[in-house]
Amino acid sequence: MKQEQKENSRKNSAYEQLQPYLERAMALQTANILFEWDNETLAPRQAGACTARVQGALAAAYQELMTGEEVRGLLEKCEKESGFTEKELAIIREAKEEQRELSCIPPEEYRAFQELVAESTRIWTQARKDQDFEAFAPTLEKIIDYQKRFAGYQAREGQRLYDVMLDHYEKGFSMEKLDEFFALLKAELVPFLHQVTDKGTEIRDDFLEGDYPQEKQRRLAEELAEYVGFDFEKGVLAESAHPFTTNLHNRDVRITTHYKDRMDSSLFSVIHEAGHAVYEQGVADELTQTLVGQGASMGMHESQSRFFENIIGRDEAFWEPIYPKLQRMFPEKLGKISREDFVRAVNKVQPGLIRTEADELTYSLHVLVRYELEKMLIEENLSVKELPKLWADKYEEYLGVRPRNAAEGVLQDIHWAQGSFGYFPSYALGSAFAAQMAAFMKQSLDFGELLRKGEPGVIREVLRRHIHQYGKLRDSRRLLKDMTGEDFKPQYYVDYLKEKYGKLYHIEGCEQRNA
Amino acid sequence: MKQEQKENSRKNSAYEQLQPYLERAMALQTANILFEWDNETLAPRQAGACTARVQGALAAAYQELMTGEEVRGLLEKCEKESGFTEKELAIIREAKEEQRELSCIPPEEYRAFQELVAESTRIWTQARKDQDFEAFAPTLEKIIDYQKRFAGYQAREGQRLYDVMLDHYEKGFSMEKLDEFFALLKAELVPFLHQVTDKGTEIRDDFLEGDYPQEKQRRLAEELAEYVGFDFEKGVLAESAHPFTTNLHNRDVRITTHYKDRMDSSLFSVIHEAGHAVYEQGVADELTQTLVGQGASMGMHESQSRFFENIIGRDEAFWEPIYPKLQRMFPEKLGKISREDFVRAVNKVQPGLIRTEADELTYSLHVLVRYELEKMLIEENLSVKELPKLWADKYEEYLGVRPRNAAEGVLQDIHWAQGSFGYFPSYALGSAFAAQMAAFMKQSLDFGELLRKGEPGVIREVLRRHIHQYGKLRDSRRLLKDMTGEDFKPQYYVDYLKEKYGKLYHIEGCEQRNA
Repeated sequence: MKQEQKENSRKNSAYEQLQPYLERAMALQTANILFEWDNETLAPRQAGACTARVQGALAAAYQELMTGEEVRGLLEKCEKESGFTEKELAIIREAKEEQRELSCIPPEEYRAFQELVAESTRIWTQARKDQDFEAFAPTLEKIIDYQKRFAGYQAREGQRLYDVMLDHYEKGFSMEKLDEFFALLKAELVPFLHQVTDKGTEIRDDFLEGDYPQEKQRRLAEELAEYVGFDFEKGVLAESAHPFTTNLHNRDVRITTHYKDRMDSSLFSVIHEAGHAVYEQGVADELTQTLVGQGASMGMHESQSRFFENIIGRDEAFWEPIYPKLQRMFPEKLGKISREDFVRAVNKVQPGLIRTEADELTYSLHVLVRYELEKMLIEENLSVKELPKLWADKYEEYLGVRPRNAAEGVLQDIHWAQGSFGYFPSYALGSAFAAQMAAFMKQSLDFGELLRKGEPGVIREVLRRHIHQYGKLRDSRRLLKDMTGEDFKPQYYVDYLKEKYGKLYHIEGCEQRNA
Repeated sequence: MKQEQKENSRKNSAYEQLQPYLERAMALQTANILFEWDNETLAPRQAGACTARVQGALAAAYQELMTGEEVRGLLEKCEKESGFTEKELAIIREAKEEQRELSCIPPEEYRAFQELVAESTRIWTQARKDQDFEAFAPTLEKIIDYQKRFAGYQAREGQRLYDVMLDHYEKGFSMEKLDEFFALLKAELVPFLHQVTDKGTEIRDDFLEGDYPQEKQRRLAEELAEYVGFDFEKGVLAESAHPFTTNLHNRDVRITTHYKDRMDSSLFSVIHEAGHAVYEQGVADELTQTLVGQGASMGMHESQSRFFENIIGRDEAFWEPIYPKLQRMFPEKLGKISREDFVRAVNKVQPGLIRTEADELTYSLHVLVRYELEKMLIEENLSVKELPKLWADKYEEYLGVRPRNAAEGVLQDIHWAQGSFGYFPSYALGSAFAAQMAAFMKQSLDFGELLRKGEPGVIREVLRRHIHQYGKLRDSRRLLKDMTGEDFKPQYYVDYLKEKYGKLYHIEGCEQRNA
C-alpha cells in the first residue's frame, strides 16, 4: 500500500509531468536532425528554401516549448522536490540550461537564424565548389552577427562572448584554459614540427593515390566500420561532401564519408566517424531520447573518434590482421607494399592545407589557426573580409604552407556555415583527452597484442564502460577524472605525439618519454 | 493611405493570424512524411521502436495544434470575415475539415494509433517476407479496431463507417456510387476477360525476364523518369520494398522503385510513380506548403500515375523514339525483339495474383476484391482470420487464380498496415478518370504523333494546366468536369479497355467503339 502511494505521488510529481513536454521537445529536435542529415546526403537541389521554412517552424516550436510557461513552471516545482536519481538530476540540469539559453533569444530572431543556417550550408557548398569566398562572405557576416547577439543575450555577468560560445561545446574550458592549452601546443609542437621537417626523412606514400575504384572503397569502408564496432543494425553509412556523424537515438546513428583520390582519406574518415558513432550507439538505453542521451560534449566526442582513428587505427598492430585483405582488394596498388611501409605512409607528417586530411602531428595546429581567428572575429571585431589573408598568413607561420584559393583555405570547413563558433577547439581537446585515456589504459592493457589478435572490441568495451554508457550524465572533465584518476593534463598529448613521431622520424630525446 | 489601412486590417485579420499555426502544422506533418520516407528507404533495422515514439510525439503535436483553442477560435472568426480568394477559402475549408476530424479523436488514442502504425509497417514487412499472415493478424486487428472507432467518432449523422473512410480519400464517392461503379466493371470486365483468355492468343513475353543487370535498370529508370517529365532538381529516385511517391513540397518530391526479375515491372512502376510526382511538382508555388498544396485526392493522383503508366507508357507510339535505346542497353535480351513484340508483351493480359504487377485489364478486378473485403471488414464485422480464405476465393472467382501463400495474397499491399482503409477504390477510380481525360484530350491532340516525335511534354502540360497546378483547391469531380465538360462517366474506362484489348486480342465488336 505504501509502495503504491509512493508511486502515485511520484506519478503526479512535477518531474513526471515534465516528461511529455521534454519528449515532444526531443521529437522536434530529432526531426530537425533528420532534415539536416537529409539535406546533406539526399535532398534535391531546389528543395532548399521550402525545407528551410519547415526547419525554421520546427525549431520555433522547440523553442516555444522549452521556454513556455508549462516547462518553466514545472522546472521551478522540481526545485522543491527531492529524491532524484542521477539521471533525473541531469535531465533537470540540462532542461534548465537549455531553457535559460533559449529564453534569452527572441523567438523571431531564433527562427530567422535557423532558416538562415538551413540555407547557408547550401550557399557554402556552392561557394566552396566555386572557390569563391565573396559568395559566402555576406552570409557568414550575418551568421556571426547572430552568434554574437545570441551570446550577448546568454552571457552571465562579466562573461565574454567567445566564452559563452565555447561553453556550448565544452563546459569547463574557457578562453583562459584554452589559451594555456594552445600555448603549450604552440610552444612544443611548432618547433618539434620544424625538427621533423628539417630532418628531411623521405616517406613514400604515392601508392595511396590513384586507381582505387569507389565501389571497392565503399565495401572496404563498410567492413572497416563494422570491424571497429559500428553496428549496422543501428546505423547507416552514406556519402556527403564533408564526413559527419549524426544520431537520432542510440538505435539510429548515421555516418557519412566521401571517396576521394587518396584512399587513406576515406579510410581514416570512416574509422573516425565510426568512433563517434560507437560512442552514440553505446549510450545506455535508459538515457537515449532524453536530454542526456547523447555524448557528453564535443571534445569528449572527438576524443572517441580520434582514439579510433589515430590511437587504434594508425597503429601498426591494428593493420597486422587486416592489411592482407587490403592487399587482396587492391593487388595492383598494394600488392608489393609491405605493411610497415603502408603504416609509415598513413602516419607521414606533411604540413598541408586541409584540416580533415592533416596528419596527427600537424592537426592541432590547424585548430590553433581557427581558435585564434574565432577569438578575433568574436572578441576583436575582425572583419569577415580580412579572413582569407589572415588565414593564409597563419597557415604560413605555423605550418609553412599557404592556400591558393578559398576552397583549400577559409571555405574548407562547414562549421561556420552552420553557426558553430567555439566548436573547433574541441577537436584539439578531444585529441588530448584521447591521449590521456590511452596512457591510462595502457597501464593495464596490451594494445599491441589485442590489435594484433584482431580484438579492437576489448578496447572499445573499456571506453564503453567508462565513457559511452553515461551519455551526457557527467561532463567531460568528470568522466576523464573518473576514468584516469587525474584532471585534464595536456602534457600526455604532447608526450604521445613526440614519442610517436620521434620514433618515426628518429628525433633524439623523444622515444622513451611518457608522462 | 486607404490601401495601407486595408493592408493593415488584412494583416490583423483572423485569417492572417491563423497562418503561423497552419505553417507549424504543415511543418510537423512534413517532418513525419520525411520519417516515413526514411523508414521505408534507409533507416537501420533496429531504429523502429524509438523512431515510432518520435513520430507519435510529432503527430500528437500536430493534433493538439489543429484542434487547439487558438486555431478553433481563429477559424470561427474567419466565418465572419469576407473577401477571401479561392485559395484562402479552400485553406479555411481544409483546416475546418481537418480540425473536425481530429477533434473527434481523443489525443491519447490518436497518438497510440500513430505509434502503432509506425511499428506495424515494419511487422508487415517481416510477415510478408516470412509469408506468415498470423504474424501480422493481431496488428491488423488492432488497426481495424482503431479505424472503426475513429470513423465512428467522425461520422456525421447516419453516415456509415466505411463511407467515412472513403471520404478521406475521395470526396463525392460513397459506397452508393462505388457499388454502381464496381458493378459496371464487374458486369463488363469479368465476361470480357473470359473472352480474352478463352481466345487463347499466345503473346510471348519471356524476354522481359532474366538477365537485366540492376545497375542498368537503375540508369534506365532515371532516364525514363526524366523523359516523362520528372524533375530531378526537385526530386529524388530511391529504392524500397514497395514503390511509392511522397512529397515534402513541390520542390522535393520523391519516388521509389524496386528492381525485380521482370524488367517491365520496375520500368512501368517508375513511369507510374513519375506520374504521381509530376503532379506534385506541378502544384503552383503559391499553394505548396499550405493545406491545399498537394494533389486533389487519391483518385485524382492515381489518374495521373495511370495516365503516364498506361495511356502514355504502354502506347506503341511512346516506344517508337526510345525503344532503340533499350535495345542498345540490353542487346542480348532485346536485340532481336521488334518494338511491336515488346509493346504487345508489356500489354499482355495475364490474370495474376499481384495487384501492382497486374495488366491494365485485370487491374480493377484486383481492386474490386479489396473493395468488397474492406466493406465486409468494416460494415459486416468480418473477422481478420477469415481474410486469407475469402481473399483466395474472390481471386479465383474474378481472376481465375488462387494465391499459394499470404505474401502473394492478403499480405501483398502495405495499405492496411498503414491504416489506409477506403484507399483502394481510388486506384480504380483513377484509371477511370484517366480514361475520361484521355478521351477528351484526344479530340484535339494527336497523342500518337506527339509520342512518336518524342514530345510527351505537350500532353503533360495539358494535364498541368487543367489539373496539377490547382493542387487541392478543387475536388476531383469538379476538376474532371472543368476539364472534360462532363461529370464522372465510368463508361469511358470500360470502352477504353475494350477497344484497346479488343484490338490486341482480336475480339469482335470492340475495336471501333468510343464513348
